[in-house]
Amino acid sequence: MKKIINDPADVVTESLRGFAAAHADLVRVEYDPHVVIRADAPVAGKVAVISGGGSGHEPLHGGFVGAGMLDAAVPGAVFTSPTPDAVEAAVKATTGEAGALLIVKNYTGDVLNFETAGELAAAEGLDVRSVVIDDDVAVADSTFTAGRRGVGGTVLLEKVTGAAAARGDSLDAVEALARKVIGQVRSIGVALTAPTVPHVGSPSFELADNEIEFGIGIHGEPGRERIPLEPADTLVARMIDAVAEAGAGPRTAAGDNTDLPFASGDRVLLFTNSMGGTPQLETYLAHGIAERLLAERGITVERRLVGPYITSLEMQGISITLLKLDDELTELWDAPVNTAALRWGV
Amino acid sequence: MKKIINDPADVVTESLRGFAAAHADLVRVEYDPHVVIRADAPVAGKVAVISGGGSGHEPLHGGFVGAGMLDAAVPGAVFTSPTPDAVEAAVKATTGEAGALLIVKNYTGDVLNFETAGELAAAEGLDVRSVVIDDDVAVADSTFTAGRRGVGGTVLLEKVTGAAAARGDSLDAVEALARKVIGQVRSIGVALTAPTVPHVGSPSFELADNEIEFGIGIHGEPGRERIPLEPADTLVARMIDAVAEAGAGPRTAAGDNTDLPFASGDRVLLFTNSMGGTPQLETYLAHGIAERLLAERGITVERRLVGPYITSLEMQGISITLLKLDDELTELWDAPVNTAALRWGV
Repeated sequence: MKKIINDPADVVTESLRGFAAAHADLVRVEYDPHVVIRADAPVAGKVAVISGGGSGHEPLHGGFVGAGMLDAAVPGAVFTSPTPDAVEAAVKATTGEAGALLIVKNYTGDVLNFETAGELAAAEGLDVRSVVIDDDVAVADSTFTAGRRGVGGTVLLEKVTGAAAARGDSLDAVEALARKVIGQVRSIGVALTAPTVPHVGSPSFELADNEIEFGIGIHGEPGRERIPLEPADTLVARMIDAVAEAGAGPRTAAGDNTDLPFASGDRVLLFTNSMGGTPQLETYLAHGIAERLLAERGITVERRLVGPYITSLEMQGISITLLKLDDELTELWDAPVNTAALRWGV
Repeated sequence: MKKIINDPADVVTESLRGFAAAHADLVRVEYDPHVVIRADAPVAGKVAVISGGGSGHEPLHGGFVGAGMLDAAVPGAVFTSPTPDAVEAAVKATTGEAGALLIVKNYTGDVLNFETAGELAAAEGLDVRSVVIDDDVAVADSTFTAGRRGVGGTVLLEKVTGAAAARGDSLDAVEALARKVIGQVRSIGVALTAPTVPHVGSPSFELADNEIEFGIGIHGEPGRERIPLEPADTLVARMIDAVAEAGAGPRTAAGDNTDLPFASGDRVLLFTNSMGGTPQLETYLAHGIAERLLAERGITVERRLVGPYITSLEMQGISITLLKLDDELTELWDAPVNTAALRWGV
């Protein structure tokens, strides 16, 4: 294992120290348990928006803490759910009478631990709601999940709900908006190489020199199939097909996992994400192909996000996320945001 | 070679298409020859600030085109200098009576081609000056260079001179400022793995499983020495020693390549850069160590930049850059910037 670390057990703590030093204007970090909190939290009268999950997906979630997005992020160990007490600490540090929305990616451990934290907070009289995002169309059930996995759509969900909370929406309204976004965002990923978890020390899976994993999860969970490496034009077309076409995915007892067709006339946000190890040169190349393919389908790309925003350590690969837009979502996307990883309008 | 590309010969063109689609509000892209131009160029009365170099270092330079930074960037083929006619096209598209400053990284091909372009532009009556940045303290001469290489300091130089041009400084003043920045910025890099150039198809060099290249160049050029992988604390201390201590580097006929001591009482910008394949978790971890070591030396870290801003494709590794700050440089660093890769104050 070749990594710039000290003891693998200290990776998250030491990385948070660097993050805190780099972004003291935006966040404060607590270490026992690990919580990244907006520097000026709690913001009086505002719904708190909180997320979290295993580390190793940076900038998700700590890089999205700040005005216009998250009030707190709860980083677990690498690829490991944060504990309920850490989530509870994040809630208590940020939540007042307006309540809090917890954004949970659909992994069994995350769902359980955020649920427990929500109950603990409710017992103290705080109004805390949770939404679970499950935008990955690759497979209907997976290694760490019953139902679809939560992946790239999470970034867009955090931005849009954070903007709604910032403009003063009620908890009811922010929760309803979150459910709406979850209903109209879909993603697919592909891996060319495997990540290595520091405390494991070896790659999470093996791929042959000419093989890729289509439908990869963000923890290296298996996708739909292993296929030979193919030209970017073919690969991105396969990804757009998977995301855009209802019913294109495998049907299981849990139901059709690509239930949202994107059709001619739709307006979308196209998010082309690097899984970490894929260079910008390739990420933008893939993005350009996706733009062309969506134009050919009559789908209007109205907003874009391109870069490493939800990663799997050093894994090479990309994901493509489509969010169906309307005037409200576009306005919320465009609203000011001031975080380490997304910043505009400020 | 596992990459998300089509024909290796088309990588730069196709990536630029995606970049242009993603950032149409900031830039326009010309393809024959390849030039990334600020969308609203030429800006009347303003000194144009232009840079460029081989592709594969993204977001450098195209990601820094926009208000408050570069007026144009000229991307060559991967790890290959842009041609004089491409640089000339960038100058002609952006430069008026206020003239232009060309920011050139110290590689033989870049220096020659920018010089030729400057002469072509001068023959057309344009006032064009060049500065050559050579901030890498690793070695005094290298594979593609006589004298020190230009690396991470380039990002800071482009930001600061871009801000000076934006506030209306004359070409004389912008050029003088650039020379001042070049005089007080120093960098060192380290590689854990090698990048693979698409049109080559195999890694640029070989490292053993437990070996790293200390003092790596951004094209995989050899550094000072190959050493065993060591804990991050030790490695970052080695890097800070190399950058901060005058005379710590090898002395050669070309002179002492670490001629700028950073000492107690200095105020600095600390730039911890991912070479591309190193995840944020490790980059921030290294940054935290660098912050601590500088504090121990009595050096005040007044501004920071952390992330992949000058990369070598998928190479794993980091670089550390120190820029000595004063009130003027800090103000120029803080000034508004609106580019794909750096954005604040707008």
